[in-house]
Amino acid sequence: MNVASLIEYPELLNSYDGFPKDVVQRAKELLAEIGSIGAYTHSQGIPIVRKRIAQFINGRDGFPADPDSIFCTAGASEGVKRVLDLLISKESDGIMIPIPQYPLYTASITLCGGRAVPYYLDESSNWDLTERELEKSLKNALEQNTDVKALCIINPGNPTGQCLSESTMKSIVKFCRDNKLVLLADEVYQANIYRPSEYPFHSFKKILKSMGAAYESVQLISFHSISKGLIGECGRRGGYFECANVNQDVKDLLYKMASVSLCPPAQGQVALELMVNPPKPGDASFELFQKEQSDIYESLKRRSQKLQGAFNEMEGVCCNPAFGAMYLFPKITLPETAIQKAKELNYPPDEFYCLELLENTGVSFVPGSGFGQQPGTFHFRSTFLPPEETMDTFIKNIKEFHVEFMAKYK
Amino acid sequence: MNVASLIEYPELLNSYDGFPKDVVQRAKELLAEIGSIGAYTHSQGIPIVRKRIAQFINGRDGFPADPDSIFCTAGASEGVKRVLDLLISKESDGIMIPIPQYPLYTASITLCGGRAVPYYLDESSNWDLTERELEKSLKNALEQNTDVKALCIINPGNPTGQCLSESTMKSIVKFCRDNKLVLLADEVYQANIYRPSEYPFHSFKKILKSMGAAYESVQLISFHSISKGLIGECGRRGGYFECANVNQDVKDLLYKMASVSLCPPAQGQVALELMVNPPKPGDASFELFQKEQSDIYESLKRRSQKLQGAFNEMEGVCCNPAFGAMYLFPKITLPETAIQKAKELNYPPDEFYCLELLENTGVSFVPGSGFGQQPGTFHFRSTFLPPEETMDTFIKNIKEFHVEFMAKYK
Repeated sequence: MNVASLIEYPELLNSYDGFPKDVVQRAKELLAEIGSIGAYTHSQGIPIVRKRIAQFINGRDGFPADPDSIFCTAGASEGVKRVLDLLISKESDGIMIPIPQYPLYTASITLCGGRAVPYYLDESSNWDLTERELEKSLKNALEQNTDVKALCIINPGNPTGQCLSESTMKSIVKFCRDNKLVLLADEVYQANIYRPSEYPFHSFKKILKSMGAAYESVQLISFHSISKGLIGECGRRGGYFECANVNQDVKDLLYKMASVSLCPPAQGQVALELMVNPPKPGDASFELFQKEQSDIYESLKRRSQKLQGAFNEMEGVCCNPAFGAMYLFPKITLPETAIQKAKELNYPPDEFYCLELLENTGVSFVPGSGFGQQPGTFHFRSTFLPPEETMDTFIKNIKEFHVEFMAKYK
Repeated sequence: MNVASLIEYPELLNSYDGFPKDVVQRAKELLAEIGSIGAYTHSQGIPIVRKRIAQFINGRDGFPADPDSIFCTAGASEGVKRVLDLLISKESDGIMIPIPQYPLYTASITLCGGRAVPYYLDESSNWDLTERELEKSLKNALEQNTDVKALCIINPGNPTGQCLSESTMKSIVKFCRDNKLVLLADEVYQANIYRPSEYPFHSFKKILKSMGAAYESVQLISFHSISKGLIGECGRRGGYFECANVNQDVKDLLYKMASVSLCPPAQGQVALELMVNPPKPGDASFELFQKEQSDIYESLKRRSQKLQGAFNEMEGVCCNPAFGAMYLFPKITLPETAIQKAKELNYPPDEFYCLELLENTGVSFVPGSGFGQQPGTFHFRSTFLPPEETMDTFIKNIKEFHVEFMAKYK
C-alpha cells in the first residue's frame, strides 16, 4: 500500500527514497491519470482502474471484459445493495439465496422490500449445491406467487467455504437460462483457495462464456472486493462488479444510481488497481510482494486445517474443511438441557452457546442462526484469522470452554 | 492531508522529517486509536473521530453533542439516502424538499419509493423561505393523502446560496413541531459563508436547543461533509450525521442499516477528524493552515462576486448573490425563438441553452430544470470554482457566447 502514501503526498515522490522504484512509477502513473486523491472521480470508477480490472478479468478467464461494463463500488456490499435495489421493485419480487448465507443478502432484500427465496446447501457433501435443490426452491417460490428475479451464488462460500465445480456451475447457468433468472455471483473470496488442484476457483464469467452462444441470454453480475483475498484492505472500501450480457439501458440505470452517491472512495479504487495489477517479475517490489502474499496464504491454509482439526476433536462438533474463503462453519449437537436453558433465556440455542463462549473466553463466534441453517440443526461460524502464533492458545481456550459447557449441560 | 500519508505509511513517522511536528503527533495519536487504515472500523465510525465531531458541535453551538448520536458516512449523500430509506416505508410517504433543490433528494426519494413534496424558495427575496409557503405545500400534500414524514432544509442553499436567518429557522422548527415532522438539515456548506456579519450560519441544532423544552419533541438529523467547505476532500468520501431528540430504538435501526455496509471509508473518517479539529494557535502547522484556508476563502468570495456581477451584466440574466455555498443560480429570460428551437429538438429550453454553451465554450452549467424551478422560468447553476487566474477568460467566453446566442434567437 506504499503507492497510497505517495498518492496522498506527491512531494514524497521526489523527497523520500524509501520506496521501491516500481512503486514510485506506479504512483506517478496513477496520479497523472486521476489528478488528485481528494477529488471526485468518475461515478462508475476511475477509467484507468476499470481498464486494469478488465485486463485482469481477461487474463483470469481468457474472455474479454469491457471497462464500461465494470462499476467500482465502496466494497462489494455497496454493489450488491445497488443491484438488489435495481432488481426488486415490488413486494412479490424474489431473490434466490443460499442457506447458510452471509446476511448481507437477507438484510438488503428486506431493506429493498422484496422476498428472500432460500435454497439449501448440502452439508453432507461439503456444502455442495444441487440442481434439484434449486428446482425445489424455485417451485416453492412460484407456488407463493413470488416473481423470482435472480439467483445469488456465493463462491467460494461464506460462511461455508466450499468451491463449486465446473459441472455444478454449468448446471447453474443452465438453470438461470431456463428460468430467465439474473445470475448474481459473489466471488469476493476468489483469491482464498486452499486446495487449488482439487477445488480450483472458476469464475462464472468464464463458465458462462465457455458455454457458447446458446447461453448469451443469461445476464450475469459478478462481484469482487479488496476486503478479502490476501490483501484484506477492507477499511478502504473498494470493490467492483462486472455486468455480462446485460443490456445498455440497464447499465445506464446502474450508472444513474451510482451517480446519486457521486463516486466510490478514490483510495479504495487505487487499492483495486493494486489488487488486479500486482507487481510483476522484474519489478523492484516483486520479490517482497510475492513473499508476503505467499506467507499469508500458507499461514491461512495451515490455520484453517489446524482449526478444522480442533473442531472435529470436540464432542458433538463436526466440521467440513474450508476449500476457500476465511471461515469454518461446524455443526454442533447441543445437549437437550442447553437447548432448554437457551429457551428459558429467550435465545436461539446456538446464540446461547456463542454468548457463553464470548463471556468465558473473549472469543467471538457468530451463531448459525444469523446465516440460516436446516431447521433443528445448530452451527457457528469462526474465522481462521487470529495471528498464527496465538492459534494454540485460542484453540486451547475454546476446547476448555467446550468441555466445561458440555459437562455442565449433559 | 499530510496526516493521511503518515497513516498510510507509518514508517514515515520515523524516517522522514518533511512533516510539521503537530502533523506527526496527530498521525501517531490517530494510528494508536484506529490500529490500521486498512481494517474495518466501527460501523458507526471510529470512536475517537465521533468524539472529536461531538466536541466540534459543542464548540460551534454551545450545546453538548453525544458521540453515540453521530454516524460517520461515505459522504453526506450516503447519510441522506440511509435516513430517507428509514423514513419512507410506503408509496404515500412524503418528504418536503425545497425547489430548487440539489437532485440527490428527488433521486433518493424516488429510489426509496416515496413522494417528493415540493416547497418553493422565493427568488425575489434572495431565495428566502416563508412559513406560508411551507403551510401551502403541506396542505397540498395532505389533500393528496400524502403521509408527510419530514421536512428537508438545505442551508446554506444548493443551488441557491442563501443563508437562513435565525427567525426563519425558529419558524421552521415550530412548523416541524406543530406538524410532527422530522427535520432534516443539510448543512454541508456551513463553512462557505461569504457575508458572515449580515448572513451568518446558524446550525439547526443550536436553534432547536435554544428554543427550550417545548421543542424537545422535534427530531432533528443534521448532515455535514468533508467534500465542501474550504478543504473539499470529496474523493475520500467522508461525512456524518447527528441525531438530536431521536429515540434510541431509531438510532439502533440506523446502526443496523450502517452495519450492512460494514463501515464508512477509514480515510474519509480521518479527514473528518482533521476538518472538525483543525490546527490550533501554537501548533507548528497552524500558520500555514490558516493562510491556506484564508486564501481559499477570500478567493472564493472574490470569484463569487465577480461572477455574479458578470451574470447581471448579461442581457436577460438576473442573479442573486451567494451568501453561502459554491454556486450561483441566475434566472435567464430566453427569447421565444430559442424556446421554440429547444422544443423542436425535444430539450427543456434551459438545457438547450446549457448544451449550446458547452458546445461553444467547453463551459458546463447545469440547467435549472435539473433542480426544479417555478413553472415558466429558466435558470442555470454555475459553480464559482474555476481557478481565479482563469476567471477573466471564463467570463469573457460566457459573455461572448451569450451575446451571440441572444442575437441568433432574437
